Order: sequence, then structure tokens, then C-alpha cells
Amino acid sequence: MRKDLTISIDAMGGDNAPEIVIKGVEYYLKHEGKNRDVRFLLHGNKGVLSPLLKKALLTKNCSDIIHTEKLIEMDAKPSQALRRGKNSSMWNSIASVKDGVACVAVSAGNTGALMAMSKLQLRMKVGVTRPAIVATWPQKNNWCVVLDVGANIECDALQLTEFAILGEAFYRALHKKNKPSVGLLNVGTEELKGNAVIKAAHERLSNGHLNLNYKGYVEGTDISNGNIDVVVTDGFTGNIALKTAEGTAKLIGYFFNQALFGNLWSKITTFANSYSLLRLKRQIDPRRANGGVFLGLNGIIIKSHGGTDHIGFANAVGVALDLAESSFMSEIDISLNMLHENGVEGSNK
Amino acid sequence: MRKDLTISIDAMGGDNAPEIVIKGVEYYLKHEGKNRDVRFLLHGNKGVLSPLLKKALLTKNCSDIIHTEKLIEMDAKPSQALRRGKNSSMWNSIASVKDGVACVAVSAGNTGALMAMSKLQLRMKVGVTRPAIVATWPQKNNWCVVLDVGANIECDALQLTEFAILGEAFYRALHKKNKPSVGLLNVGTEELKGNAVIKAAHERLSNGHLNLNYKGYVEGTDISNGNIDVVVTDGFTGNIALKTAEGTAKLIGYFFNQALFGNLWSKITTFANSYSLLRLKRQIDPRRANGGVFLGLNGIIIKSHGGTDHIGFANAVGVALDLAESSFMSEIDISLNMLHENGVEGSNK
Repeated sequence: MRKDLTISIDAMGGDNAPEIVIKGVEYYLKHEGKNRDVRFLLHGNKGVLSPLLKKALLTKNCSDIIHTEKLIEMDAKPSQALRRGKNSSMWNSIASVKDGVACVAVSAGNTGALMAMSKLQLRMKVGVTRPAIVATWPQKNNWCVVLDVGANIECDALQLTEFAILGEAFYRALHKKNKPSVGLLNVGTEELKGNAVIKAAHERLSNGHLNLNYKGYVEGTDISNGNIDVVVTDGFTGNIALKTAEGTAKLIGYFFNQALFGNLWSKITTFANSYSLLRLKRQIDPRRANGGVFLGLNGIIIKSHGGTDHIGFANAVGVALDLAESSFMSEIDISLNMLHENGVEGSNK
Repeated sequence: MRKDLTISIDAMGGDNAPEIVIKGVEYYLKHEGKNRDVRFLLHGNKGVLSPLLKKALLTKNCSDIIHTEKLIEMDAKPSQALRRGKNSSMWNSIASVKDGVACVAVSAGNTGALMAMSKLQLRMKVGVTRPAIVATWPQKNNWCVVLDVGANIECDALQLTEFAILGEAFYRALHKKNKPSVGLLNVGTEELKGNAVIKAAHERLSNGHLNLNYKGYVEGTDISNGNIDVVVTDGFTGNIALKTAEGTAKLIGYFFNQALFGNLWSKITTFANSYSLLRLKRQIDPRRANGGVFLGLNGIIIKSHGGTDHIGFANAVGVALDLAESSFMSEIDISLNMLHENGVEGSNK
């Protein structure tokens, strides 16, 4: 078993687990992962998982079930999960990363519990104050990454600076771009905009020693328009921006379906143009962006949407493999060293 | 001249003023305002505006030009604009409302300057701490209003409560719904989510004496999904959510055009289904939502996007007329009285 291609899966986490988890891994292996030499550790109840694997032969052939009967409920509080969750499927999936048996873990379970358990088991990287969740968004011809999208409700300037470092290393490793551009999310691009924390973060990020391709303030529209690669914000704003964009995409998808399938004539013309329209449907499919990554820990943890289906889960598995094969963790270490050689003397606000 | 149907227009405000302003009023009169007995006061340079009116006869027939040579630059700081902007087209358009000559003013000019001048001339309503900008968003079969979307970067719990009152009265008057639902924007709907200000606002809003149909916390997705009518948030979060949604809509519009017109075959099938697709195009047209309204002042001021075209400006004029004909200002007074009879004794955070 090659350590660098073993993925640990919390098979019992998510609204529709374990069914969509197993179907998701199978979908991944069938469509994307054909040529990848990968093994999965499926953490969960053997009695439930074994029958599912009979219908998922690609998965069965490259998986081991690590049995546990315990699981974390989707509505458990993080503190409860920490107290009672040891040896649950979620806990064990993280432990595989900690023990070096797997190089990345994927869970569609409770976000707060996953974050708390990840922090406890893997610990923060030296020099990182708090972990962040990074999300990937589509642009015209590219991708944008946004962080934090929910781990930290309130952030100070040092944290925002750390997010910039983490996000930039993430983008560099995953999207193979040498000098990705970094922007700080604000309500305008003029110097005088924003609150005190944002202005202080802007000052820190403008410090050339960080070796960032920092572009200054960006606005909400910039997340989609292709002007910027890495967008830095606090977890409150990022979470609301992400969910607002999701809601907008869903609403437009609804109008779109009405226009394409609302009556017999539109169905016929839609069928006639089905190639282009199927491509469009894929382009605006929010499942393509599933798979938030926890950054700042000594190990890689991927959080899938709790309510996703098997195609969304397959996407999260793809992100896990891409990260596992990338130089992400070492890139982050280099960048963090640079931050703390040059930035620690600054104020914390 | 009937006072209640006179609209004051800052004809020189906006990236493409005064051309799009005059074209916008003309477009409104031609398409939406046929049966409305309305007059316009066009504030701006007579030498520039008169030739434009020769090509806009509907507008010419129901307008008076109020001449001034002064205008506010789009990049002026609010403090500069206040010092030097007296008798500018923007200043005068607000003064018409203050003097009771017009019942509402519309400007596509500099937002900060417009807000500062409006506050100075019209003053806040008794019991309102700070004004808010409210924006209207499409939903499946309805509209949602969101406030604040940019006037207040940081808000306390009392302000958020006032925004709820203002937004609810606005929705009631403009969308003719007796008990619109009100939600507080947060990163989750559970009681334990959010920061201290949001929790304190939640507590205030849950107070039944305010006579609100308050539904508790809502998330970014709820803005579009039709579950809520009025979404309350601070100006930082609201501005970023609004712009992120705009960016998402534009990106999807781009993918959409590619699918519909990318090659000859798709053009033909698109033509064949043009009725449904034109309807869709209209549904997702961001110009339909143009026209942010300043709430909390002794007078109605509408802010159009600075970069909008004539169709967007026409939409802002439509919003102005709908508000002028509504019971909006008196509804707000009734609701504010209720807030301050029941809420003033609470803490300010």
C-alpha cells in the first residue's frame, strides 16, 4: 500500500451516508480515477458497508473497511462530538491521517465536529493561529479560491494574513500557477474603504517581504469575474458570500429549466441543442465545486457538503487525490516560514 | 403640478450621465409609465440637457430643467462633496425633496456623496440611528429585500433592529404584503451561531412587541430561495453578498450565451425557442433590480447603479414612482413608534 495514494473516508458522515459515499467513490473511480493507483480506507459499520460494496465493485477492489459502530450525528455540537466521538468513523478517518496510514481524509459529516476533531488530533501547523476552510469557485476559464468560508466567525489582521499565505500555497499546488494573485475582500477597492481589521490586514499584505502577488482590495463581483485567484475574507463574510452565490446559481438554474422544458416546443428545441446545453448544465453545476479543504493543520482534511449526492462526493474525492499528489503541504511550510520571519513583529490587530 | 407625482432627477450623476439618464426616463415613459401622470425636475446643465431632450419627446413634454453648472464627480470623497457640492445637480435634486416640490429623488451619482448630502438636508427620521440602503432581489415568484447593502460598515444590535423595521415597512408598502417575513442573515440557523451583535439583535427581534413576522436566522441561500421577504444584515456583509450574487449571475449569463449562440446550430435552436429564452433573459437581467433606496430619512432618495444603462435607470425611476404612490413613509413612522415604545430600554449592543 503506497502511503501517498491512500485516502481515508468517513463512510458514515453526511445526510445520505453511507449510500452516497460508496456511490460517490465508485463514480469517481469509473469517471475520473481510472488511471490512478489509489486505495481507500472506508471507516464505518462493516455490516452496513459490505452489502453496498457488492454493488460497487471498482470500490470494493481497492478498499478496506475499518469497522466501527460509532458515528457522529449531523446535529451534534462540536464539544459533544469531542467528548463522546472517539473511535467514531469521523474520528478514525482523521486518525488514519495522523498515523500516516493515509495522506488525506474526506468526510461529509458535521463541519464543527470535523474541525474540532481535526484540530485535536492533527494540531495546527507551527505559525498558524487558526485553521481556515477554503472553497473553490468557477470563473470563465479558471477557478478562484476563497477562504475562510466558515471556520472563523471573527478574524484579526494576522489571521487574514495567514489565510492569504495558506490560500496562495493551496492555489499554487492545486492549480499549478506560479504566482497566483491574492485579493482582500472589501466593499470597495479604494484605500479608505473597510473596517480597522481589514485596513490593518491590507497593510500587512502590502508588505513585499511576504512574496505574494497581492493585488489589494477586491469586491464580491471579483470572485466570479476572473480578475483574481485567491480571495481572502473572514469566515462570516465568506460563508454568506458562498451561500448567496449558491442560492443565485440555483435560482437561475430553476428559471433556466423553465425556459428549456416549460412546454413541448421548448423541449424540442432544447433537445436539438442538447450538446451545448448539457455542457452549460455541467458548467453551472454547484456539485463541481464540492469539497472544502481545511487549511493550517498538520494533515489534509476535505469537507464535503453534508447534503451532497454521489456526484458531489466524487468531486470531493477528486480534490483529495489532487491535493495528495501535490506539493501542497511543503509549499505551505515554506510560505509560513516567510510570514513569520517577516511578520511576527507586527501588531496582532 | 401634483406634488405626489413629481420626481426629482440628478441628471448629471452616473458614469454615462446625462445621456443614459434622459434615455432612461424616456424608456420608462414609453414602456412602463404610459398611464402615469408624472412630472420630472431634471437638475443639470441646460446647455447639455436641452439637445438631449430633442430626441426624448415624451420626457420633454413632462419635464422642467433646473439649471446648474456644478456637478459631483464620481470619485469625490463624501466630505469634499459636502464642502464644495452645494447647488450641484445632486444637491439640488435632494433639495427639491426637502422643499416639498418633489416627493422622491433619483441619482446614479457617487453613493457616499449622495448619502452624506441626503443626511444633511433631509435629516434622519426621529428614532433612526443611521440610514440604510435597501436592495431588491429576484426570487422564483416574488422579491426579497436586503438591507443594509453598503451604508454602514459596522452595525450594532439596535441598528439591525431598526433595519428590520424599516425593511418590513418598505416591503409592506412596495410589495403589498400584509405581514412580510423578516430574517436575520447569519452563517447558520441554529441559536448558537453568529457573533455577539447578531445574537443581541436576534434577541431584540424575537421580542413580540415589535409586531414583526420574525423568522429568526436565515442563510445566504435564503435570499434567493423564496423562504423570506426581508433579510437584515450589516452594510459590509450585505454589500459583499449583493456583489457576489451579481458576479455569479453575470458569469452564468456568459456561460448561457456561449451555449445559446456559440455555433450556428445552437443559434438556430435558440431562435426557435426565442420566446421562452427572451423571458428567461429578462428574468435574470440584473438591471431589473436596479434602484437601491435610502431608508430612515425624512424623504425618499433612490440610488441607481453608477454604471447602469438606460434600462437600468428606467427601473430606478419605476421604483421611485412606486414608492411615491405608496404609503411607505407613514408605514415607517408607525413601525418606528412601535420600536421605540418597546425597545429603547434595551442595551445598545
